[in-house]
Amino acid sequence: MQKIEEIAKGVLTGDKKSIARAITMAENTPEEAQSLIAAVYPHTGKAHVIGLTGPGGSGKSTLIEKMVREYRQRGKTVGVIAVDPTSPFTGGAFLGDRIRMQELTTDNGVFIRSMATRNNPGGIAKATRDAVKILDASGKDVIIVETVGAGQSEVEIIKVAQTVIVIHAPGLGDEIQAIKAGLMEIADIFVVNKADRENADKAVVDIQAMLQLDNKEKAWTPPIIKTIALTSEGVPQLIEKIEEHWQFLQRGLLHKRSLEKAEAELVEAIKDKVTSSIIEKLKREKCFEEILRRIVEREIDPVSAAEKLLNQMFE
Amino acid sequence: MQKIEEIAKGVLTGDKKSIARAITMAENTPEEAQSLIAAVYPHTGKAHVIGLTGPGGSGKSTLIEKMVREYRQRGKTVGVIAVDPTSPFTGGAFLGDRIRMQELTTDNGVFIRSMATRNNPGGIAKATRDAVKILDASGKDVIIVETVGAGQSEVEIIKVAQTVIVIHAPGLGDEIQAIKAGLMEIADIFVVNKADRENADKAVVDIQAMLQLDNKEKAWTPPIIKTIALTSEGVPQLIEKIEEHWQFLQRGLLHKRSLEKAEAELVEAIKDKVTSSIIEKLKREKCFEEILRRIVEREIDPVSAAEKLLNQMFE
Repeated sequence: MQKIEEIAKGVLTGDKKSIARAITMAENTPEEAQSLIAAVYPHTGKAHVIGLTGPGGSGKSTLIEKMVREYRQRGKTVGVIAVDPTSPFTGGAFLGDRIRMQELTTDNGVFIRSMATRNNPGGIAKATRDAVKILDASGKDVIIVETVGAGQSEVEIIKVAQTVIVIHAPGLGDEIQAIKAGLMEIADIFVVNKADRENADKAVVDIQAMLQLDNKEKAWTPPIIKTIALTSEGVPQLIEKIEEHWQFLQRGLLHKRSLEKAEAELVEAIKDKVTSSIIEKLKREKCFEEILRRIVEREIDPVSAAEKLLNQMFE
Repeated sequence: MQKIEEIAKGVLTGDKKSIARAITMAENTPEEAQSLIAAVYPHTGKAHVIGLTGPGGSGKSTLIEKMVREYRQRGKTVGVIAVDPTSPFTGGAFLGDRIRMQELTTDNGVFIRSMATRNNPGGIAKATRDAVKILDASGKDVIIVETVGAGQSEVEIIKVAQTVIVIHAPGLGDEIQAIKAGLMEIADIFVVNKADRENADKAVVDIQAMLQLDNKEKAWTPPIIKTIALTSEGVPQLIEKIEEHWQFLQRGLLHKRSLEKAEAELVEAIKDKVTSSIIEKLKREKCFEEILRRIVEREIDPVSAAEKLLNQMFE
C-alpha cells in the first residue's frame, strides 16, 4: 500500500490516482485519512466551492457537465463531487449521459467523483467535506458539489459551499414546495432549467414571489437564471453570476463564513474525540447492558438513562 | 402556558391538543421536552411503528390516506408523522389532497402531523423519535412515519420503524436507482403503486431481480405488493402483509431490534450530554477564538485543532 505521505504529495501535484485514493480513504477509513487531511490542509482555501442542489429531474447533472465545459474554456480547473444516488456520475443513469461524463474525465483539468452514501451512515457530510479539501489542495479552481435537495442532511452537506445554486425545472409538480420549505434560505442563485418548456416563466414568477415574501434586508439578492442545459443556453450567464457572487463574498462576507465553517468543523471534531473514548469505556461496564434492558422495558427513557450513567461515571 | 405535567396527562388520555403541543415542544425546545418525554416514556412500546419511504411522485400520501381508512375500519387508531417537505400533510399540495387529509383529522382515532425540517438543523431525527413516543403513549395502535427516501438522514429517520415499506411507481425514470442504492436493505415490504400503469409489472420484476442479487440468508423475504392507492386496490392486502411482518417480528427479532434501538438512542444521548458541557466551556476560553483564526488561516486542520484543545483542557 502506498504511504500516506506519498498520497498527500500526489494530491498536491494534482495526480488523479492519488486524489482518487485520498477520497476513498476519507470515505472508508476516516480515522486513517486524518493525517492525510492534516498534511494537505495548509494548501486548501483557494478553491471556490459551489453547491448545486434541486429535485430529481431538474437536470442537475447535465447542467454541471456544461458548467465544467464552460469553466474549462475559461482556463479554470474543476472538481465535481456528486452526493446523489441517482446522479449519472455514480454510474446509475442512461448510457448516453455516462458517456458524456466520461469524456470529461479524460481531461486532466477535471476530476469527477461520486460519494457512496451507502456504507457511510452519518459520515457522508464529513467525507464530503474531506473530499472538498482534497480537491482544493489538488489545485482545482472550482469545486462543484451536487446533491439532490431533499432532507436535512442534504442541506447540511451543501453548507460546504460558498455559493449555493438551487435548480428547478418546470413540470416537476409540487416539487417547488420542497424549495420553498428547505432550500429557499440557503440559495445564492436560482436556476430555472429546461427554460424552453411551457411554464418556465411561471416557475420564475413563483420563485420571485417567494423571494419577495422574505422581508429580511439582504446585501445580496439571489438572481434567477434561465438555462437550457442540453444546449448550454444560459450557462455562460450562470457562470458570470457565480463569479459576481464570489466577488461579492470577497468584499466582506467570506471571512465571516469561513469563521463559522471553522467553528462548526471544530465543534464536531471535539464532539467525536470526546465521546468516542467515553462511550467505549461505558460499553464495557456491566451496568450498560442493564440500563439497555431497562430502556427496552420502558422503565427509563434514553436521555434520563444517559444522565444516570454519566453521573455514576463521574461520581 | 400549560404545565408539562398537564400536557403529559393530556397525551396519555389521547387529547389532540396536548399531543400537538407535545410534538411542537419536541420540535422547538427539545431540552424542555425531555421531562415530558421522560413522563410519557413508561407508557410507550405498544404501537406498531411503520415507516413508508420512496421517491416523490410514487403516491406515498395517497397510499397513507387509504391505509389510515383501512386501519380505522379494522378498529385501530392511527398516528401519521410526515417528514417530507413535499407531503400534502404539510399543507403544501393540491387542494383536493388537502381536503381529503383534513377529513381524516376530524376522526378522533387519527392524529396527523408533519415535522418541520426547516428550523431544526440536525435535530429532525431526534424530534421524529420523540413524536413517535408521544403518539405511542397517546395510545395509537399504529404509527406511520412518511419520508421521501433520499439522503442518509431519511434512512436514519426510517430506523424508528419496526416495519419499513419502500414504495415505488412505474414511470419515475431512474429513481429505481435510488432504491437500489440506499433503501434496498432496509425494506421489509415493497409496494409498487400506480399498478394500473404501463410498466408496473416491469417494476415488480426489477425489484425481484434486485432481491435475488442479495445472497444473504433471510428469515423474512420482503414481499412485493401491487397497489392502486387512488382506488384503494391492494390496500387490504398490504395491511395483511404488514400484520404478517409484525407477527414475524414478535416471534423473535423484535426484542433484538428494540435493544439495538435503545443502544443507539442511549449512545446519542450520552454524546449530547457529554459534549454540550465541554463545548460550552471551551467556547468561553480565549484560545478558542485563536484556534478558529488558525483554522481559517489554514495553519491547522479542524480535527488536529480539536485534539490540541482537548489536550490543553485535560492537561
